[in-house]
Amino acid sequence: MLIGVLGGGQLGMMTAQAGVKLGHTFRFLDSAPDSPARVAGELQVGDFTDTDALRRFARGLGVVTWEFENVPCSAVQVLSRSVTAYPGIALLEIAQDRLSEKTAFREIGLAPARHLPVSSLHDLRDAVSDMGVPCILKTRRMGYDGKGQFLIRSRDDIDTAWKEIGQSQELILEGFVEFEREVSLIACRAKGGAGVGTGLGAGARSAGDVERGSGGRGIAFYPMPTNVHRAGILRVSRVGEGAEIEPELEHAARAAVEKLMVGMDYVGVLTVEFFVVKKLDGGRALIANEMAPRVHNSGHWSIEGSHASQFENHCRAITGMELGSAALVHPAAAMVNIVGAAPRAEDVQRVPGAYLHLYGKEPREGRKLGHITLVGSREQVESGLSSLRGIPGTVIE
Amino acid sequence: MLIGVLGGGQLGMMTAQAGVKLGHTFRFLDSAPDSPARVAGELQVGDFTDTDALRRFARGLGVVTWEFENVPCSAVQVLSRSVTAYPGIALLEIAQDRLSEKTAFREIGLAPARHLPVSSLHDLRDAVSDMGVPCILKTRRMGYDGKGQFLIRSRDDIDTAWKEIGQSQELILEGFVEFEREVSLIACRAKGGAGVGTGLGAGARSAGDVERGSGGRGIAFYPMPTNVHRAGILRVSRVGEGAEIEPELEHAARAAVEKLMVGMDYVGVLTVEFFVVKKLDGGRALIANEMAPRVHNSGHWSIEGSHASQFENHCRAITGMELGSAALVHPAAAMVNIVGAAPRAEDVQRVPGAYLHLYGKEPREGRKLGHITLVGSREQVESGLSSLRGIPGTVIE
Repeated sequence: MLIGVLGGGQLGMMTAQAGVKLGHTFRFLDSAPDSPARVAGELQVGDFTDTDALRRFARGLGVVTWEFENVPCSAVQVLSRSVTAYPGIALLEIAQDRLSEKTAFREIGLAPARHLPVSSLHDLRDAVSDMGVPCILKTRRMGYDGKGQFLIRSRDDIDTAWKEIGQSQELILEGFVEFEREVSLIACRAKGGAGVGTGLGAGARSAGDVERGSGGRGIAFYPMPTNVHRAGILRVSRVGEGAEIEPELEHAARAAVEKLMVGMDYVGVLTVEFFVVKKLDGGRALIANEMAPRVHNSGHWSIEGSHASQFENHCRAITGMELGSAALVHPAAAMVNIVGAAPRAEDVQRVPGAYLHLYGKEPREGRKLGHITLVGSREQVESGLSSLRGIPGTVIE
Repeated sequence: MLIGVLGGGQLGMMTAQAGVKLGHTFRFLDSAPDSPARVAGELQVGDFTDTDALRRFARGLGVVTWEFENVPCSAVQVLSRSVTAYPGIALLEIAQDRLSEKTAFREIGLAPARHLPVSSLHDLRDAVSDMGVPCILKTRRMGYDGKGQFLIRSRDDIDTAWKEIGQSQELILEGFVEFEREVSLIACRAKGGAGVGTGLGAGARSAGDVERGSGGRGIAFYPMPTNVHRAGILRVSRVGEGAEIEPELEHAARAAVEKLMVGMDYVGVLTVEFFVVKKLDGGRALIANEMAPRVHNSGHWSIEGSHASQFENHCRAITGMELGSAALVHPAAAMVNIVGAAPRAEDVQRVPGAYLHLYGKEPREGRKLGHITLVGSREQVESGLSSLRGIPGTVIE
């Protein structure tokens, strides 16, 4: 099947690399002629708002999907006239607005951070008074990798925050979450997938197993990674034995995501990012931070770490195939992003068990240029992480 | 680095899929516009004998290599004027002629099958008398996947054999080898790799380990697969616990290939196919059948089975990088070719531990359309092989 992908970044590239093995071919739409995905399919250079470009793009596609969540819904609407679009526009619209996103979290039983809508400087002053400091002013739309955010440490920051990201945009003020860790849940739902159970019950072979609904399909839950960010950019994800996720938190997250996916008839990969906070009684709770209706950076370890990677399962889902197992094939895995500076491939390759993935991008500050996967026992993975310390582009806490 | 590949088949495609992760990009030259490798780089449609096409192809390349062994040496000579060509023309020439190939085997201490050159019907009659029946008449050049061969069962077959593949071509008559098994050795040598040892001595961590020569480089030997052919086409390869290779045979094969590689300053992957025969004393011996100066079908399991696949190590070698470990990361692995008929992806995916690789080719009788990798314990791999029985395109003995 010819699969159309809106966006030609590395997520699109890795989706296609997985999909061609299943017999599919790919066409990407992106405004940048040097998009990473050009090596994995046909790249059409064009704008998402150009209806003619969208029509040309749609010609002959069996299905269309996207690899970044800020693709204009109008583009998906145009394409939907002639081709099925997955994961579906409903959750795309919700995920593009931090306020709708938080409302959706509440509806499926997840706690979002405290928040207040802000549409004027006056609103902002009131909201900061209500919320207390520190708090974070965010644009409701088009934020990613820490962009479109301003940390308000005291009331003196209000005017600067407004100047920086206020103006004509719709905003949201969020309470600062004193989190202990950041984690994410990556799930993939097949067409018509019932998603029976949450994968942590008696019937599951291991965490991260495939849930089989009617007709052998369902929802595949990847084991939850623990994620470390720097300056808003994901740096390291750990899964399996090194992730230290409380089973009851994973269970709760899966149950909520299943509810959302089934309720919206979602097809493909969905990612939800959470904060883990310490409760007053010493226990732990999840605060839902944001969701992405697409494959996710915190799931890149699944290429080597799972039998079916997030990219492969997304392809399987949107083309009507059954899902593959999301379970870890090693006790532990980790992913280290390469940001800003490109390491020498040889320096990475000297680290035992390190799998290098470069995206073919020119180095630029804050740009994700590639990632490194480590798999093995927890000790092997941690030892690999230690060896990567100091290699340009990698930041290991 | 921009890597040029002569040939745009699946071997080129998988080489590029491995190479892009190391930061390289690819350009292919092939006469077929629907070449599988088109999904993994820039495909230039053209003929290997067209000097202008070769010049255009060479522009901007950092290195050139090939993915099939029948690329005309003249093309490599033209390209070599402006770009380094690896693995090198010397062994390419030898491997293209079954007679030179057998001479080369002898020189490095490997026993080839008994053979006699044939250049006329008269020669053929004499040679069959000398050799006895059954014996196999083969073209000296351009044979692959069992093509250009004729099995002579009795003297009555001589005229037919001559009509079928004789005529103006140079031929070789080979004694029929009553083999017990077929095996192959896939090795990769880094630039300047000294290849110290054969990987089965005390210093090696496991069979299939990387040999480290001066400067940490050397020769990476993959564990030897046992291969099953049908009608001249490879169907199944098994490595690790299921391969049942005698360590002394593997040692001898490695020593010979190391000698050849170091002697010819070979850079990249080289494959030698062997027959295992039973000796009169009950022991086993190797008969060298043929070699391919390129990545090989019997090494496809290495994508999931080894830390660094044959494709990745070939890219590393020809770009001057250090080699990665060729050791198996599971106790066993197997590869099943998909030939002639395409299976339903879902039927393959239902088999636990099966990794499907389709090449995007139209089904045609005898055509390799893809392969399936199985990794795990020997029992898991054999159980996977059993489950694949009866799936269209797969033949499991």
